[in-house]
Amino acid sequence: MIYFDNAASTKPAEKVIEVMVESMRTLYANPSAQTIVGFNAEKRIKEARKVFADIINSKDDEIYFTSGGTEGDNWALFGTAEGYNRSGKHIITTTIEHAGINSPCEKLEKMGYEITYLKVDEKGYIDLEELKNAIRKDTILVSIIFVNNEVGTIQDMEAIGRLIKEANPETLFHTDAVQAFGKVKIDVKKMNIDMLSISGHKFHAPKGIGMFYMKNGLKVKPVILGGGHQKGQRSGTENAAGCEAISVAARLMYDNFESNRQAVYAVKERLWNNIKESIPDVYINGDDLDKASPYVLDVAFMGLRSEVLLHALEDKGIYVSAGSACNSKKKVQSSVLGAMGLDEKRILGSIRFSFAEDNTVEEADECAEVLKKLVPMLRRFNK
Amino acid sequence: MIYFDNAASTKPAEKVIEVMVESMRTLYANPSAQTIVGFNAEKRIKEARKVFADIINSKDDEIYFTSGGTEGDNWALFGTAEGYNRSGKHIITTTIEHAGINSPCEKLEKMGYEITYLKVDEKGYIDLEELKNAIRKDTILVSIIFVNNEVGTIQDMEAIGRLIKEANPETLFHTDAVQAFGKVKIDVKKMNIDMLSISGHKFHAPKGIGMFYMKNGLKVKPVILGGGHQKGQRSGTENAAGCEAISVAARLMYDNFESNRQAVYAVKERLWNNIKESIPDVYINGDDLDKASPYVLDVAFMGLRSEVLLHALEDKGIYVSAGSACNSKKKVQSSVLGAMGLDEKRILGSIRFSFAEDNTVEEADECAEVLKKLVPMLRRFNK
Repeated sequence: MIYFDNAASTKPAEKVIEVMVESMRTLYANPSAQTIVGFNAEKRIKEARKVFADIINSKDDEIYFTSGGTEGDNWALFGTAEGYNRSGKHIITTTIEHAGINSPCEKLEKMGYEITYLKVDEKGYIDLEELKNAIRKDTILVSIIFVNNEVGTIQDMEAIGRLIKEANPETLFHTDAVQAFGKVKIDVKKMNIDMLSISGHKFHAPKGIGMFYMKNGLKVKPVILGGGHQKGQRSGTENAAGCEAISVAARLMYDNFESNRQAVYAVKERLWNNIKESIPDVYINGDDLDKASPYVLDVAFMGLRSEVLLHALEDKGIYVSAGSACNSKKKVQSSVLGAMGLDEKRILGSIRFSFAEDNTVEEADECAEVLKKLVPMLRRFNK
Repeated sequence: MIYFDNAASTKPAEKVIEVMVESMRTLYANPSAQTIVGFNAEKRIKEARKVFADIINSKDDEIYFTSGGTEGDNWALFGTAEGYNRSGKHIITTTIEHAGINSPCEKLEKMGYEITYLKVDEKGYIDLEELKNAIRKDTILVSIIFVNNEVGTIQDMEAIGRLIKEANPETLFHTDAVQAFGKVKIDVKKMNIDMLSISGHKFHAPKGIGMFYMKNGLKVKPVILGGGHQKGQRSGTENAAGCEAISVAARLMYDNFESNRQAVYAVKERLWNNIKESIPDVYINGDDLDKASPYVLDVAFMGLRSEVLLHALEDKGIYVSAGSACNSKKKVQSSVLGAMGLDEKRILGSIRFSFAEDNTVEEADECAEVLKKLVPMLRRFNK
């Protein structure tokens, strides 16, 4: 089995599983319990907060735990809309966001908010000038995906953050950093990021746990109300084992940052070079090999349908995506590639290979060998 | 260590941990992935749904997975309010709900909804006549806690459900069943329950996973939006390992239902009999020993302060609660006991002992021995 679908979900690290099991066995008390067993669980959650604060350069108490990236995205949008509607009802985002941003935006539009969707160029970058011109006095929020989930385009967050605060210091800046965390360096101060959402299962933590950074002092409202956990910002018994697990996974990613990047880039480079040399009419979607995220390679195989190639690869034990797996309806059509202005034919034949640190160049070779046989055959059938 | 704080959180069962680890190791693909690895994960989630449907007598596709009980409570309240505001803005609940219900109700009141809070008697029961009289044409929802988290009072859900539907067939019936699931029999058809929220960590599943039952055909709106997972009702990558874990825990509870109840009741009975015989001026809060949930024993020790007794017990390695742990602020004062009309003195000295199947009568004896020494001493200090 060759698993090249890591942008959809990664395998939890063994160390993460170990920590989780240990925590479930020994720290199962309610972190809000009034006794030492509760405090012990709470202490680990505090330590987990500190891990994230160190990584993204925030304060410890600006770190919250959620059920995942979608909850964080919803929190940023609905929480800002509710907390700041007296300041304005204008929100800016992009045409290449994850559904966790798009769906709340659609709802906010129905509720009377105005959403500006920034276009992207053929590599998936927003235009800073367009962003600047879009920011108004009543713009309460700009939400921009850090690393795109389909093509791996990395936005220039430092420039974007600076520009937003120059144009309107009151405008909040949120980023869906689900594909960025662990894979690029993040500095919320330097990047002027006010809120940031991530999901554990994208970097070898379990599913069901995410992290949400929110700068102190904001009037963003909580979306889940109850016993006042997490400073009243996110109620519900804290998932202590999950918090520990995600913090261990985070630490592993950043402790091995350079070697991780080199390892996955070697796989990506090898796979692309092999494909390019042996198969005609193929293109990278997104930015150049070395400029996009090393974790993602989106390739257009002209003259075939991606879902057919996807299942043909599956038959050989190679698992990839067509589009992103984050749309639950398993539909193949990509709105991201459309937003990048790619034509229908190219979109139809696009496959996302996404990597993890345990993938090998041998797997890249094997995958390329399979593609070399499959693609010409499928192209003939497609005629 | 004697852990009598199981209503706050239980220890995950070893079988549950095993299943979770196996799932994290082998079924880590995104359940929405387009390939067999995704389908395999999705299949397990479907099986988990079936487990719950069998237990509560619902359809498989009426079962949703959440991050916990608080999310479910929020969903029922905010989702109904949004989906049914054209039918009315009146909601009925009780004065002894969990904060996951109370806090959303407070917000809904600010949003222009009218909330009727039903009183309870000194044992914690609502008055069916009062409920009947409270239901109006514009009552869109009745939300009643199934088993109270502090005193273990079990409402007569069958009578309540029947009464609601007779008074207004359009009124939805939700129950916070967090302390009920696994501990009493639940039949959503017989009880006319339209929505039900539970939390895994209250019955030996991990934290961070809950189940929400919602009858098909309702116009209740989702609260977390995104990629359209779970029939568009709850977006966010499904926590496959968590879903499996909670279903295994559920199965364990109901497969061993009678023996579990007997085991915990034996502990509860022994503890209370010991306390009653050796310590004067003690009362059970809530209904009689054999009528309340066998999992909870709330005792008023007159003439002392519960937080002092709590910490004195803690020093001896015995862990209990004063009030419920679900209020994150670790405050001791109980609003449930107040709602039951108990006087200040009795509330101040009340301790919740809550049990699990692995507690023993020997632990009950040991705890009672400790109490026998501590209580008279603390009463002297309290003078």
